[in-house]
Amino acid sequence: MPESRVDTPAPPEPEPRGGAAGSWADAAERIGADLHLELSGPGGRRAALTRALREAVRGGRLAPGTRLPPYRSLAADLGVARNTVADAYAELVAEGWLTARQGSGTRVAERAAPLPPRTRGPGKAPPRAHGPRHDLRQGSPDGSAFPRAAWAASYRRALRQAPGEAFGPGGPAGRPELREALAEYLARARGVRTEPGRIVVCSGFAHALRLLFGGGVLGGPLAVEGYGLGFHRELLAAAGVRTVPLPLDEDGARVDRLARERAVLLTPAHQFPTGGPLHPRRRAAVIDWARARDGVVLEDDYDGEFRYDRKPVGALQGLDPERVVHIGSVSKSLSPALRLGWMVLPERYVDGVLAAKGEREAWASVLDQLGLADFLVRGAYDRHVRRMRQRYRGRRDRLVAALAGHAPHAEVTGVAAGLHAVLRLPPGTERSAVEAAARRGVALDGLAGFRHPETDMPPRDGLVVGYATPPEHAYGAALEALCEALREVLPPGGPAGAPPSVPAG
Amino acid sequence: MPESRVDTPAPPEPEPRGGAAGSWADAAERIGADLHLELSGPGGRRAALTRALREAVRGGRLAPGTRLPPYRSLAADLGVARNTVADAYAELVAEGWLTARQGSGTRVAERAAPLPPRTRGPGKAPPRAHGPRHDLRQGSPDGSAFPRAAWAASYRRALRQAPGEAFGPGGPAGRPELREALAEYLARARGVRTEPGRIVVCSGFAHALRLLFGGGVLGGPLAVEGYGLGFHRELLAAAGVRTVPLPLDEDGARVDRLARERAVLLTPAHQFPTGGPLHPRRRAAVIDWARARDGVVLEDDYDGEFRYDRKPVGALQGLDPERVVHIGSVSKSLSPALRLGWMVLPERYVDGVLAAKGEREAWASVLDQLGLADFLVRGAYDRHVRRMRQRYRGRRDRLVAALAGHAPHAEVTGVAAGLHAVLRLPPGTERSAVEAAARRGVALDGLAGFRHPETDMPPRDGLVVGYATPPEHAYGAALEALCEALREVLPPGGPAGAPPSVPAG
Repeated sequence: MPESRVDTPAPPEPEPRGGAAGSWADAAERIGADLHLELSGPGGRRAALTRALREAVRGGRLAPGTRLPPYRSLAADLGVARNTVADAYAELVAEGWLTARQGSGTRVAERAAPLPPRTRGPGKAPPRAHGPRHDLRQGSPDGSAFPRAAWAASYRRALRQAPGEAFGPGGPAGRPELREALAEYLARARGVRTEPGRIVVCSGFAHALRLLFGGGVLGGPLAVEGYGLGFHRELLAAAGVRTVPLPLDEDGARVDRLARERAVLLTPAHQFPTGGPLHPRRRAAVIDWARARDGVVLEDDYDGEFRYDRKPVGALQGLDPERVVHIGSVSKSLSPALRLGWMVLPERYVDGVLAAKGEREAWASVLDQLGLADFLVRGAYDRHVRRMRQRYRGRRDRLVAALAGHAPHAEVTGVAAGLHAVLRLPPGTERSAVEAAARRGVALDGLAGFRHPETDMPPRDGLVVGYATPPEHAYGAALEALCEALREVLPPGGPAGAPPSVPAG
Repeated sequence: MPESRVDTPAPPEPEPRGGAAGSWADAAERIGADLHLELSGPGGRRAALTRALREAVRGGRLAPGTRLPPYRSLAADLGVARNTVADAYAELVAEGWLTARQGSGTRVAERAAPLPPRTRGPGKAPPRAHGPRHDLRQGSPDGSAFPRAAWAASYRRALRQAPGEAFGPGGPAGRPELREALAEYLARARGVRTEPGRIVVCSGFAHALRLLFGGGVLGGPLAVEGYGLGFHRELLAAAGVRTVPLPLDEDGARVDRLARERAVLLTPAHQFPTGGPLHPRRRAAVIDWARARDGVVLEDDYDGEFRYDRKPVGALQGLDPERVVHIGSVSKSLSPALRLGWMVLPERYVDGVLAAKGEREAWASVLDQLGLADFLVRGAYDRHVRRMRQRYRGRRDRLVAALAGHAPHAEVTGVAAGLHAVLRLPPGTERSAVEAAARRGVALDGLAGFRHPETDMPPRDGLVVGYATPPEHAYGAALEALCEALREVLPPGGPAGAPPSVPAG
C-alpha cells in the first residue's frame, strides 16, 4: 500500500513535458472537460474534486499510468484554489488511486488487473437470491420483515455505549451484556433457570453441536428423534458421533427406549418436523432418566417463541438445569443472517465448552452481540416476536383454510406452533406431490428426507410446508401453487382411504 | 411463552375479592404509591405505565403471583384512562411479565428463579477486561480507536439498502456486495488480482485454515516459517496436519528448502513475528516452486495495510493468482470483534472451500458483511487505516526512541511495518526480561513461544512488543514500565557483547 501523503508536504511539481500520449496536457484537458461539470455534491469543492477524480479512475476514464496535470493547471481550469487540488491529490494518493513520485509528478496508479469472472459453480449469489419462485421450505423467517430500523438503532446505541475493550478480542463466553440479557429473557419467556455465567454464545445450533461433540465435552452415541434434521445427523457423523433413533408416537419421542446412550437430543416444545410437544409425562421421564444414568438432554428450542393456540410450553431445562443443555438462536425469531445463538449449560460443562471454543471469541460477531443485548433489554425483541407471531399465525390460518378447501385428503398437523406445518399424505404419494409442486415453482421437502435411516418407525408420507419464508405479498401465490399441485396428486374424487393414524400436532 | 393479548379483547375483569395476602387491594395501594410518581419519560402515559410496571416486576417490588388491581381501580388511582391500563397490562402479558386467566384476573407471572452465579472459572468476563495493567502483547489493535460512528452509519445504511433476501440464510461465499468491494479494495491497496467469484468470506484466518485443511481441500504436510503463531500450529495439528518448519534468514523464509510438501504458509509482507519482508528473489522462487510442483502458497496478509517506512510490499498473490491463497481479515485493521475475514482463492479451490463451508453461511454475520461492504466502498476503511497508520507510526517511533535511550543493548527490528516490534536480546536473557516486565504489570511474549519445536534454527532471545493494543493515554506508562524492566535485566553498564547477528526488519 502506498504511503500516506496526508501528513507530508505536497510533492514537488514536475515541469510540463507534454506531447506523449497520456501526457498531462491531454489529461488536463480531459479532466477539465470531464470534471468541471461535476464539482458538486456535499462537502465542499475539495471533496467534490476528490470524488470526481476517484470516479474517473475507478471508472476507467483515467487509465493507469496517466500523468495528472500540475496543481496550478488543474486549479486554473476548474477555478479552484491550488491547495484544493493538492489536497485532493494527496487524499487519492493515500487511498492508492494515484501515485506521487519525486520528479515524475502524480499519476494514476498501476492497479492489479481483475481476473475474468468465474463462469461456473457456486459463490456467485446466495442460494435463495435466485431461488425458487415459491419458497415453502422450512427453516427461515420472512427476511423482508426484519426490523431494520429498530435493529440498527440498537446496534448504534450499543456501540456508542460499549467500553473500549469490547472492540478488542472477545472472551469465548460471549459479551457479558448479552449473557445477562439472555438470562433475563429466557427466564421470562421460556422458563429457563440459569444465570449469565452458565451461558455461552455461539453462531447457532450447529455450532453448539460442534462445540459439544467436536470439542470432547460429550461423546456418542447420541439418541435422537426418529425424524429430525439430516444436516444435524451428518454433522454429528462427521464428528464421529453415532446417532441412535428413538421412535415417535402421539406423545413425542419414546424416551422409555433410551438404552445405553448417555445423551439425547430432543425438540421438546415442538417436535421437528412432525410438530407435537413432548408429553409432560415424557418430559418428567427423560429428566428421571438423566438423573439415574448421569445422562444429559440436549434441548433444541428452535422455535419456542412461536406458539399460537395452546398454553405455553416452557423449556425442559427449567425442570433440571444441571441435566439439560438448552440451545437456542435468533435464526427463526429474528434472522439467520445474524449467526447468533446460545447454549445454557449445566455448570459441569461450562469450562469444557469454553475450552472447545478457544481462548478468544473466534466466531460470533461481538458487535452483533452488543446489538442483540440492547435489542433484548429494550423490549424490541419481544415486540418483534409478537408482531411476527401474529403474522405467522395469519399465514398458518390461511394455509389450513386453503388446504381444507383444496386438498381434503391431506391432514394438516403440527400447526399449534412454529413456522411450518406437516401435511400428511396417503401412503405412496409424497414423491409425486413434491414433484408436482416443483413443476409449479414450489420448493418444499417431503417427510422422507427427515427420517433417520436406522429408525424402525414405518415410513410416513407427508409434506413439510414452511410458511414463514415468502415475503408477505408473495404468500398467497405460493399457497395457490401448492393447492394446485395437491389437486393434481390428490384429486377431490380420488383415493378415498382415511389418512393413516398419526400423532396430531 | 404466554399468548399475545394484543390482538384479542381485554380479559374480563374479576370481581374484587380483597383480604388475602397479595390481594389486588394491597397491590393497588402499592402500585399506586410506587408508580404514581414515575409516569414520566418518552412515549406518553401508556408507555410510561408499561415501563413502570415492568420495572416493578423486574426489580421484585411486585412479587410473582401478585394479583394486579382491575383496570378501573388503577386507572382512577393514576388519573389515566381505563384503556391505558388495559393496554399496558396486555403488553406486559404478551411480554410474559404478567399472566391473564379467565376468572382470576391479571397476575405477576411466576417466573423461573435464576440460579446463583458461578463462583469460579472463566466465562465471567472477556480475558482482557481485567487484563494486565500494560498490555504489550502483539495481535490486537487499539479497541478504543474503533470508528464507532462511521461504522454504525455504514451498518445502518447497508441494512436500509439491502434486499429482503439478505436477511434470510446467506450463501457460503459471503454477500456479493462485500466480495465486490473486497475485490476492488484488495486490487487497489494490496495488488491482489481477483474477482468476486473467487473470494470466500470467513470468520478470520483461523477459520480459513480450518476450511482449507479440515474441509479436505488441502492436505498436509504443510511447510511453515520457523517462527510463527503457535495457535496456528496447534490448530493444524488438531486437524491432523503436520507442519514442517523452514528456516528464516535475513531474506525471510528459506523457500529453497521446500521438499516434498505441496503447500507452504508464509507471511510475505511482514514475517511474523521477526518482521522482515520476503526478499523479491524468494517471492519469485516460491512461485516457481508452486508452478513446478503443483504446489500452493498460503499468504497470511495479517497486517499488510500497516507499512511505515518502505515502499509498498504488495501481495504475493498478484504474481500468480492460481498458485496463491491470499488470506486477510479486519482483525488488525479494524477490530477482531467483527469476526470477518476473506480468502482469495485460485479457481480450482473455490468449489471445495464452499463445500467445506456448507450450504449456507453458518459463521460470519451477514449484517456485518453488509456493513463492511459499505464501509469499504465509501472510503471509510481507507480513512480509518490512514488514521491508525499515523497513530501506530507515532507509537513505533516512541518505542524506538525510548529503547535507544534506556536499553541500548537491545536491538529493535521489524519496525518498518505492522503493529509490533521485535526487541532482540543477548542470549539467555529473554526469560528474565519477560519476568521483569510481568513484575511491573507489563504483559508481552518472548520469541521462544513462537519457535517451531522442530526447527533447526538456533534459538533467538527477544521480546515481541505489541504497541497497538493500549489506549492512547496509557501507552506512555506502558513504555516506561517496559524500559524499567529492561534496565533491570540489561543494566547500561552490563553485558557489553554485541547483539547477535540477526535479520533486520
